[in-house]
Amino acid sequence: MTKTRLEAFSDGVLAIAITLLVIEIRPPEVHEGERLAHALWAQWPSYVAYLVSFLTIGVIWLNHHRVFEQVARVDGPLLLLNLNLLLWTALIPFPTAVVAEHLGDPGQAARTASALYSGVLLLMGLAFGALFAWVTHTDRLLHRLPPPEVVRAARLRFMVGQAVYAAAFVLSWVSAPLALALCGLMALYYAFDQASVPAEPEPGGQQPPDEPSSWK
Amino acid sequence: MTKTRLEAFSDGVLAIAITLLVIEIRPPEVHEGERLAHALWAQWPSYVAYLVSFLTIGVIWLNHHRVFEQVARVDGPLLLLNLNLLLWTALIPFPTAVVAEHLGDPGQAARTASALYSGVLLLMGLAFGALFAWVTHTDRLLHRLPPPEVVRAARLRFMVGQAVYAAAFVLSWVSAPLALALCGLMALYYAFDQASVPAEPEPGGQQPPDEPSSWK
Amino acid sequence: MTKTRLEAFSDGVLAIAITLLVIEIRPPEVHEGERLAHALWAQWPSYVAYLVSFLTIGVIWLNHHRVFEQVARVDGPLLLLNLNLLLWTALIPFPTAVVAEHLGDPGQAARTASALYSGVLLLMGLAFGALFAWVTHTDRLLHRLPPPEVVRAARLRFMVGQAVYAAAFVLSWVSAPLALALCGLMALYYAFDQASVPAEPEPGGQQPPDEPSSWK
Amino acid sequence: MTKTRLEAFSDGVLAIAITLLVIEIRPPEVHEGERLAHALWAQWPSYVAYLVSFLTIGVIWLNHHRVFEQVARVDGPLLLLNLNLLLWTALIPFPTAVVAEHLGDPGQAARTASALYSGVLLLMGLAFGALFAWVTHTDRLLHRLPPPEVVRAARLRFMVGQAVYAAAFVLSWVSAPLALALCGLMALYYAFDQASVPAEPEPGGQQPPDEPSSWK
Repeated sequence: MTKTRLEAFSDGVLAIAITLLVIEIRPPEVHEGERLAHALWAQWPSYVAYLVSFLTIGVIWLNHHRVFEQVARVDGPLLLLNLNLLLWTALIPFPTAVVAEHLGDPGQAARTASALYSGVLLLMGLAFGALFAWVTHTDRLLHRLPPPEVVRAARLRFMVGQAVYAAAFVLSWVSAPLALALCGLMALYYAFDQASVPAEPEPGGQQPPDEPSSWK
Repeated sequence: MTKTRLEAFSDGVLAIAITLLVIEIRPPEVHEGERLAHALWAQWPSYVAYLVSFLTIGVIWLNHHRVFEQVARVDGPLLLLNLNLLLWTALIPFPTAVVAEHLGDPGQAARTASALYSGVLLLMGLAFGALFAWVTHTDRLLHRLPPPEVVRAARLRFMVGQAVYAAAFVLSWVSAPLALALCGLMALYYAFDQASVPAEPEPGGQQPPDEPSSWK
Repeated sequence: MTKTRLEAFSDGVLAIAITLLVIEIRPPEVHEGERLAHALWAQWPSYVAYLVSFLTIGVIWLNHHRVFEQVARVDGPLLLLNLNLLLWTALIPFPTAVVAEHLGDPGQAARTASALYSGVLLLMGLAFGALFAWVTHTDRLLHRLPPPEVVRAARLRFMVGQAVYAAAFVLSWVSAPLALALCGLMALYYAFDQASVPAEPEPGGQQPPDEPSSWK
Repeated sequence: MTKTRLEAFSDGVLAIAITLLVIEIRPPEVHEGERLAHALWAQWPSYVAYLVSFLTIGVIWLNHHRVFEQVARVDGPLLLLNLNLLLWTALIPFPTAVVAEHLGDPGQAARTASALYSGVLLLMGLAFGALFAWVTHTDRLLHRLPPPEVVRAARLRFMVGQAVYAAAFVLSWVSAPLALALCGLMALYYAFDQASVPAEPEPGGQQPPDEPSSWK
């Protein structure tokens, strides 16, 4: 199993999961005497859930590449840890659909939906953290282990994500919309964090292994 | 993040979105005493919507490559602008389903469906235009900035698309079928415009960076 | 637009279309007092339709590569003709679902479903024939135009397919199962025809352009 | 048809099949006065079925690469045998959905669902075994036929899988959950078996053809 194939398969799963999100947004049922515009408006939780999940999976994809850019070898545990990450990521359309259906509900249903949603994201975050910890626990899988402080900073970023998803999980019992907003902010933060990575050098000039700039 | 991976992921999302369109065409419910042929015929809006959306996503794919053929480097904002384009493109199956269900309705429902459809296409067009503006606002991301008049002509083509989608959005309140036809014509125009691009040179002989013919 | 990207996008659409077929097979509704085994058995048309369509799309994929192995350049009309082929191929899950639902019905519904199915396959066959005719109408797009008798034989094979699908379309009014069986036999014939192509040479030793053996 | 394209198409189908599993997990219907948390809990068979099928398809993907790493040439029968393997693998979401719906049922329905599930896995296992037997029946398709005892050991591993799926099929009539657990254990066993494969050498240093270590 080469790294290229692992990446191609992961890219495939992530591209499909992100595109499948749309099939959870159904044309609304229009009740007798209701206007279509009103019925479309009433399912705003579907649109919010689509947006947050799209951003989240997009960011998982960005981070996945960021990590694997540094990886030189793939071993058995890494294969399993990657499959574990894909398992939770490919599951995201399900809690997205539950949130879409129940975020507008009064009472416990919205809170349960939101707890399910942030719970799945938390498990995804833990799976990603475990993969990252395995990759960096030695320099056997990397081109070269980056300086300890760089690894520590990158691990911290993963732990911030996990803490935020855990906070969203707890916050679900207080306010479902707030918890979902927190998940969305997390995705936005990661996205703009990525956006600050400088442009790659000219193609052909591949990133030298001794310059793991993308983790800084 | 290299350009190759950005393209592979985008290709994946576009290929899935274009193929998912078909699951919005369901076998019709056949009422007591109705013939299947009649029931199949009655859902003609589904077929029209499939055709227009298939062409539209196909053309997005063609234009996406046309732009990225010229791109030499990928930076953070380009990643986000591309994710934004994919977000609106991957959403297209939803308004397609709404149009399929309501285009044949009398009154406001058809108009609302058509406005939703052209509204999403307009937002997609604006996202594509923003991506293109970022790519061409300097020569930092390109092999070489093409002559100003070529860039201006290409920008004009994007703005024509946006203007047409905006016109379709407004036209929705007058006639839903006309608005949808306008979206279809737009896709056809882009498709045949692409068809006039001359054949690539022999493979192996990669297009030299100083001949950005595909924008002319 | 290079040939590689055209192939990658087409492969993506074909892989998705062939895998989407399964979502048309739903767990059966089990009526009061009915056994699940019986209900599963009762939806045998779904399994037959899955099998025939899977084979058909698999064979389209095989033939697509067979043709594009010979192609050296991609021009605008070829892009559009390929998009046209994908449009009909990506549509196949829809008539498959209609056949699955109505093949067991008495009377006209089964015949209509079968006519729809073979009609879509016929249009797909015509689209593929048009693409092939364009590719071979001159040697501008090929590494080297193969001997006229080879081209003629390959065109004949396409026309046989179209004739068989046309026959299945007509046969639908006589017997829906027979028409479907004919479509299945067609796919089997193409599949085993492909199976007779000799093994490729060692990788690295790419097929020389002046030996278009795969059309013989 | 080159090996690269066969692998790319197979990877596509496997990535889509594994990601499509999630659309079988629907947001539950919440009955009057029921809590959403309870309704979510009540569909635990869906989660179990997702987990087992995800692992199974993941392992099929791992084994597929393990076999094709050794393959040097693709011939016609191999194409058909691979299409046959994909046919059964792409079908897995269907029995998964049946198990998800009926595993919690009392009586025969759960047993039938479980028999269908392990039956499809058995047919998939036989298809994979046939493919492997064809690949190793001579050294015509391989870089070099590995030592007979290595081939024999690898064949034995395939036959163990088939025997376990056959046992699960029979066990279905005794206990549906036990049969499903057996299928899950099988996937786990294969997964951890893979995990023991040592890390690949540095990229660029491709695995030499005379060292088929991945079969040992």
